[in-house]
Amino acid sequence: MSIEPERSELPQDGHKRVVIEKMEPEIDGGRFPIKRVVGEAVTVRADIFANGHDTLSALLLYRHESEQQWHKTPMRPLVNDRWEGSFTVTELGTWFYTLEARIDHFLTWKFDLEKRFQAGQDLEVDREIGARLIEAAAGWAGRDDAARLREWAGQIRQAPDDPRALSLAREEELAELMAIHFDPKLSRSYRQELGVTVEPEKALFSAWYELFPRSCCRENGDHGTFRECEKFLPLIAEAGFDVIYFPPIHPIGRTRRKGKNNAPVAEKEDPGSPWAIGSDKGGHKAVHPELGTLEDFEHFLARANELGLQVAMDIAFQCSPDHPYVQEHPEWFRWRPDGTVQYAENPPKKYEDIIPFDFESEEWQTLWEELRSVFLFWVGKGVTIFRVDNPHTKPFPFWEWVIREVRKEYPETLFLSEAFTRPKVMYRLAKLGFSQSYTYFSWRNTRSELEQYLTELTSTEVREFFRPNFWPNTPDILPEFLQYGGAPAFVIRLLLAATLSASYGIYGPPFELFVAEGLPGKEEYLDSEKYEIRCWDRNDPRNLRELIARINRIRRENPALQTNWNARFCETDNDNLICYLKTSADRSNILLVVVSLDPFNNQEGSVRVPLEELGISAGRPYLVHDLLTEEKNIWHDEENRVALNLQAMPAKIYRLQPRLRREHDFDYYM
Amino acid sequence: MSIEPERSELPQDGHKRVVIEKMEPEIDGGRFPIKRVVGEAVTVRADIFANGHDTLSALLLYRHESEQQWHKTPMRPLVNDRWEGSFTVTELGTWFYTLEARIDHFLTWKFDLEKRFQAGQDLEVDREIGARLIEAAAGWAGRDDAARLREWAGQIRQAPDDPRALSLAREEELAELMAIHFDPKLSRSYRQELGVTVEPEKALFSAWYELFPRSCCRENGDHGTFRECEKFLPLIAEAGFDVIYFPPIHPIGRTRRKGKNNAPVAEKEDPGSPWAIGSDKGGHKAVHPELGTLEDFEHFLARANELGLQVAMDIAFQCSPDHPYVQEHPEWFRWRPDGTVQYAENPPKKYEDIIPFDFESEEWQTLWEELRSVFLFWVGKGVTIFRVDNPHTKPFPFWEWVIREVRKEYPETLFLSEAFTRPKVMYRLAKLGFSQSYTYFSWRNTRSELEQYLTELTSTEVREFFRPNFWPNTPDILPEFLQYGGAPAFVIRLLLAATLSASYGIYGPPFELFVAEGLPGKEEYLDSEKYEIRCWDRNDPRNLRELIARINRIRRENPALQTNWNARFCETDNDNLICYLKTSADRSNILLVVVSLDPFNNQEGSVRVPLEELGISAGRPYLVHDLLTEEKNIWHDEENRVALNLQAMPAKIYRLQPRLRREHDFDYYM
Repeated sequence: MSIEPERSELPQDGHKRVVIEKMEPEIDGGRFPIKRVVGEAVTVRADIFANGHDTLSALLLYRHESEQQWHKTPMRPLVNDRWEGSFTVTELGTWFYTLEARIDHFLTWKFDLEKRFQAGQDLEVDREIGARLIEAAAGWAGRDDAARLREWAGQIRQAPDDPRALSLAREEELAELMAIHFDPKLSRSYRQELGVTVEPEKALFSAWYELFPRSCCRENGDHGTFRECEKFLPLIAEAGFDVIYFPPIHPIGRTRRKGKNNAPVAEKEDPGSPWAIGSDKGGHKAVHPELGTLEDFEHFLARANELGLQVAMDIAFQCSPDHPYVQEHPEWFRWRPDGTVQYAENPPKKYEDIIPFDFESEEWQTLWEELRSVFLFWVGKGVTIFRVDNPHTKPFPFWEWVIREVRKEYPETLFLSEAFTRPKVMYRLAKLGFSQSYTYFSWRNTRSELEQYLTELTSTEVREFFRPNFWPNTPDILPEFLQYGGAPAFVIRLLLAATLSASYGIYGPPFELFVAEGLPGKEEYLDSEKYEIRCWDRNDPRNLRELIARINRIRRENPALQTNWNARFCETDNDNLICYLKTSADRSNILLVVVSLDPFNNQEGSVRVPLEELGISAGRPYLVHDLLTEEKNIWHDEENRVALNLQAMPAKIYRLQPRLRREHDFDYYM
Repeated sequence: MSIEPERSELPQDGHKRVVIEKMEPEIDGGRFPIKRVVGEAVTVRADIFANGHDTLSALLLYRHESEQQWHKTPMRPLVNDRWEGSFTVTELGTWFYTLEARIDHFLTWKFDLEKRFQAGQDLEVDREIGARLIEAAAGWAGRDDAARLREWAGQIRQAPDDPRALSLAREEELAELMAIHFDPKLSRSYRQELGVTVEPEKALFSAWYELFPRSCCRENGDHGTFRECEKFLPLIAEAGFDVIYFPPIHPIGRTRRKGKNNAPVAEKEDPGSPWAIGSDKGGHKAVHPELGTLEDFEHFLARANELGLQVAMDIAFQCSPDHPYVQEHPEWFRWRPDGTVQYAENPPKKYEDIIPFDFESEEWQTLWEELRSVFLFWVGKGVTIFRVDNPHTKPFPFWEWVIREVRKEYPETLFLSEAFTRPKVMYRLAKLGFSQSYTYFSWRNTRSELEQYLTELTSTEVREFFRPNFWPNTPDILPEFLQYGGAPAFVIRLLLAATLSASYGIYGPPFELFVAEGLPGKEEYLDSEKYEIRCWDRNDPRNLRELIARINRIRRENPALQTNWNARFCETDNDNLICYLKTSADRSNILLVVVSLDPFNNQEGSVRVPLEELGISAGRPYLVHDLLTEEKNIWHDEENRVALNLQAMPAKIYRLQPRLRREHDFDYYM
């Protein structure tokens, strides 16, 4: 077989000998931005090499979207042709980064000159070569730098002897000038610019408290209101939460309303599910009248903000049959041949209180625009966080577009993805722009399950775009572990969530009160607040509030708990114990967390502290201070015994303090 | 911080809900083609998913470069949203592949219909929905198919009852029509087309024999010639080699010629290094007069081809100071300020017999074109294989261009990359188009070294573009293991090379004769043929020829040895034994290779045969037939004892034959 000859053109960049490969981070070939919060670093690595043995140099280029010019910072070679550089993002919005690499003839010349000199060779010709390289660089420089470069060239040429020429070649100013001015023909830019979405710190580090405002009632039988809810705000703020999150607050439909425990037919007094959105009182831009007015909600927002709390709103893009959209925009729904609307269903099951939007509608564009207006409406009222219900049932392109649209004007807005679905779908949503995501944490109970999942989330590419938010429970999920594990199970799951993930949340009232009764055979709450009002007994002395406040304080006081990338699991000789180090970047804050995973029995075992990684000499004493109990102890070795008593506390959060070296090597511990 | 609002357009493909991600194989985001030989399969995998619960379907599209239309073959879902499809490449040249995926409303409808029917629901409305889906598909079909589809729609609508409608919905013809005709709005093509370079089988499976033609002499003191060389061709063919490879055959320079053992000054009678190319007798398109004429070389080629041998030519793009290029094209070289040409050097070392081309020359384009003409000159003479010397010292873009240029007219041409350099550079050269590559095999001696290296080459993405060629020795490399391990070391390295890699080669004469004397402290030959003529004693009775012929025959008779992707390492209880299975795709050919890695002591140990993977029931007898000694044995278990005696043979190549099930379950072994 022979193909007709057809001479191809010589490549334009035949001169460019440098290669840039395997850029990291780069999500799906650059299709998606990575994520950071303000103040975080972006560390970029790439394989950079060329043919032959010339010395290379490489620059990391970065800029904020508002800037035209790149900032440039040198990269350094690691091993095996891998290079690294980093920069810090200091503002909200989108940042860009890329690379530039080149054959650096000046550096090659300088290194070779040293070697020739060491070998006692005559440098005369090589000095002239260097001088010419420097003069050539002057050709790419502005007037001042060009003059300086010509001066350097002259000095090296006229140096009285080789040692003097060599020391001139080593001069820092010359190096700096030569790093900036070079033959662009020998320089290669990476093939594309990559994005970084920069969000507020809370996107990474946050503690969420979920409650149903309608349950903020004075006594049984009442319907809670925003005004009543305000009274609980100080308690939630004092407990150390950042975000208070409400299920949907919109008018609830009447038609086919569900009764208690999801009964297909509601009793007259049943309040219905807040997720069956829309009635003759309005839809996604209205407030359920029994909760109060829009002004009441705005008042609530203002009060929360005063206390340092942000309010997260639930956005569920679906309608009750009574939603005004159904009449006003029939083109946004799917209609069956018999003239009825297509309800949500998973055949043969039907969910007749909820109508999904038809995103394949010919009118998808007006639908998208309307849904965007819902976000913008609430952003306009001061909402900065949206928890999005079931995003995985709406098209991916919609989320990418709508999140970008909101962020364009309001880059501080956060989005939490509630996608309890297959892993690749969860990850895709995160890539599209969601700030945080619900996770499988709720069902990861054993040591290997937890270690494996955390490794996936924090040590693979996933960490660049997926920020976990760990929830021990939600109104939809009362895990088996909580149903059967008694109070210790609640403590265990709380501590794991709050120390394994920089963001965590609880569906507060029933969690605080150890509510554990599920629907038979299901991981769902019995008498769920989704279908009825629950006036929680806030005076019940058996509650978790103090521990919750303590753990939130520990989280705030220890930077090691404010990021996800630093979980380092440690060996234990008992699989009922999980043990992990969390260390701040500067190592000033080192926590060793040990949690029992067995809610039924006391457990003890040895844990191995990787002292060498921590810069602690084995055999030398170091202080361990349990932040949960304030107990202190001195350890010396890698292997240490830990006993966890269920009645006391099934976990330890040790702060490790290496011995300080004082001037006179005096033994001293803080 | 707030950015000026600027409403973006709605995305064009807002309708397209399907996602295609993580395509494999895809090298560097599609920058490079993968490689196959004629007859091999390309198996493609990708994550394919959409929002919601609709059923998807996906097609793998592929075509040869000479075709306009895509062939389409369905993909099938594996687990976790991963899909797979494959096709076979049947012609030389470039092939392309890509994917198409879509929301399949018809399949969704069909599956739901089954579920509704099982649940006893009335199907009337659903039948109508299906009929409308089918009618809609008719809108995207040609006249005949449209008519057939409308017929189906009518039949389903008018079916006398639901069971009849259901059985109509299940009809194969309807499924096939609906698979072809669909709303293009719901279909997404993968973002790019990916390439496959398809080469002759020999690119994958080949046995190389290297020799210096000048050593094909009748007696000591002679200069060998092509004519004399021809006499050895039958021996080399009978020994089962495919490729005979010559170091450069061009005129050798006189200026600064190297003497024996790389002496800086040559004696008058020293023939010089064949890599110091060019003299007044010509350059890269000429033949060294002492070897014969160009016609002699063509005669040699023809004779080799008659015997089923291909001749590989060495292409070393560098010049002796006497090369005509130096005078005729000074612009292709770098000149120092003192008017001398820049020799090859690695400061403070200088290699004054060789001048490199200056690929940064302003005249790089004419240089590239001239070098292309060198390949085309020899291709014109009938050479189909080039072994390229030190490609890592020439620019990457050059290789990509020149290989593509040669292949355009001569897609059967093979290129072997001799890049003993850093791993990423080796891999880059392979990606650029080299058919085969030298490897680190020469220095991988222990079990873990070999297992790790083979795993990298055959179980990672590397296997898609890098085809190893394993050489136990080369004129440049006499490894320590061969220098000190005696005859068993030669046998061990030969067997490893020939069974671990589908392509292998030996620098023949000294290998056959166990030549092991190196330069003191170096892995180089003493009295190397690179600098002198060696008249090998072909009558020495102590030689490896018979074993080499046997191993080449075993390679030809056993398809399991003709591919690289099937090496599966097995456990042994002795680290001096390495054990691996090689199994043909259809499992008709199963080899279990056990090699001792210790050339000094007899070794024995247990090896574990993973019977379950092979479909052999543990406890049932299976035949093992050692192809090296023709010994047969019956094994029953996973664990089996193997003893390797250095005097006999430090390896086994067992062919495994599972017991055949005969009609009367008669015990029978082939």
